[in-house]
Amino acid sequence: MGWEDQSGRPASAAGKRIRPALCLYAGGLFGSAEAAMPGAVAVELVHNFSLIHDEVQDHDAERHGRPTLWALLGTAQAINAGDFLYSRATSALLGGNASPERRLAALRLLTEAVGRMIGGQWADLSFESRADVTTDEYLAMISGKTGALLGAPLAIGATLAGAPPATAEALGRWGETIGLAFQIHDDYLGIWGNPDLTGKSNTNDIARKKKTLPVIHGLLGPGGKAIREIYARPELTEADISAVITALRESGADEFTREAAERQAAAAVAILDTIDLAAIQKDDLRAIGAYLIDRDA
Amino acid sequence: MGWEDQSGRPASAAGKRIRPALCLYAGGLFGSAEAAMPGAVAVELVHNFSLIHDEVQDHDAERHGRPTLWALLGTAQAINAGDFLYSRATSALLGGNASPERRLAALRLLTEAVGRMIGGQWADLSFESRADVTTDEYLAMISGKTGALLGAPLAIGATLAGAPPATAEALGRWGETIGLAFQIHDDYLGIWGNPDLTGKSNTNDIARKKKTLPVIHGLLGPGGKAIREIYARPELTEADISAVITALRESGADEFTREAAERQAAAAVAILDTIDLAAIQKDDLRAIGAYLIDRDA
Repeated sequence: MGWEDQSGRPASAAGKRIRPALCLYAGGLFGSAEAAMPGAVAVELVHNFSLIHDEVQDHDAERHGRPTLWALLGTAQAINAGDFLYSRATSALLGGNASPERRLAALRLLTEAVGRMIGGQWADLSFESRADVTTDEYLAMISGKTGALLGAPLAIGATLAGAPPATAEALGRWGETIGLAFQIHDDYLGIWGNPDLTGKSNTNDIARKKKTLPVIHGLLGPGGKAIREIYARPELTEADISAVITALRESGADEFTREAAERQAAAAVAILDTIDLAAIQKDDLRAIGAYLIDRDA
Repeated sequence: MGWEDQSGRPASAAGKRIRPALCLYAGGLFGSAEAAMPGAVAVELVHNFSLIHDEVQDHDAERHGRPTLWALLGTAQAINAGDFLYSRATSALLGGNASPERRLAALRLLTEAVGRMIGGQWADLSFESRADVTTDEYLAMISGKTGALLGAPLAIGATLAGAPPATAEALGRWGETIGLAFQIHDDYLGIWGNPDLTGKSNTNDIARKKKTLPVIHGLLGPGGKAIREIYARPELTEADISAVITALRESGADEFTREAAERQAAAAVAILDTIDLAAIQKDDLRAIGAYLIDRDA
């Protein structure tokens, strides 16, 4: 879980635990954050399971400046560790004080979210070897890979606390839409963000030849051929990166991406309007949504 | 699942589905094989999930003469496929007609078995770099890696069909003990079996430097130094293999292993005696147990 470093010392940065916080918050909306606790544990365990397997799949040896699990233990044991965390997530949801029906409903929400998350990861990996990915395919991919596990905590927390199924489902859809808005906004900032404000490089995504939404849009436009040629090179120079960014801007990828993020943020607001909650609770959720979309990592 | 080959043609050999058969049989013992169906689906999905990840971890490019999934799709997508099968196993157990309480109990049995299975796999991998593994550690490892998912189908099938919890638990323990007896017997046949009868090589385990029970017993005995030296070589010659087998026999590893298998088989019989079932049902179970212990693969 990243709580300790490799020598067992407590680690300072161990994740923001956004998903369990969302789960407990959703429980509180329906009278009991405590009832949502097994869900909070489960979604954080699933999140860590997915990070550990993603790092193996992407050969990422570092995250936030720390060695990843496979870099410390080898890929075989990292696969085991991820598998085990997923089994513990199920275990967590099997416990707690909620009625058997609510626990089963919560487990169903988690299981469907995990299935969609893995489907998104599958699609993401398959996109690496394709030059003809459409923006719709990309959005479907991130709605699984990023969105599903941002919506599920809300739906699970609400369900465990006794929310009507339709309300829990709508809250989950709201969270997933916020997740999409976040991911697209992050894709935008990865190229046109101000590093002084975001704390992140705005050349890294291109340098690593990532196929984020602006790049996918650009590949389909008039500058697509140039981008494809540059992305075929083993290493990109600063001039290559500048050329890609110029081609993206010429194809309107910046505006397309900003508008796509705004469209998802607006969709989230529209979903929130349909949910049967008090005005003050909706104000809170809007503030949470704005925070999530603008968060740095 | 191995039902088709890589070009989509139906495959002739697609596994014996022992685990789902055990699950349905256990359901039938308590009046409804049909009630056990979601459990049968779940245990077969978990078994395939574990095979796919094991093959990645062990770098096995072939199983039963066919390419493994990672050999066809790469390790990254094979990890995804295993993860997805596990999520579908949970999905299967969430459905069905059993009461919510029974479904939760069955899911708990599956989840605990998966946790123990992964723990066994973790131990097995960690043994590769150790020369001081005890026979007790080895038995604990295989009771997780092999036993847990042979006991769980019986406990789950019985639970879904409405068996009393203590009876379901005892049936599961019986299956797990049969699994242990099978694994130890298999370890014995891997060195002292008659290839004409088993259809399997009796030099392969040593040639691959596997640390099966006889080898672990031998490593702790007077011939341990010689075995350790030979196992340190990159490739073993026929003379090396013969020398290991001689050292094992001198340390009494053959008798030790045969007795260990017989002890587990006797323990299984003793467990069966305590279970509240009709004599004719126990006769069937004894025949199933004998078949499982002697099966080839």
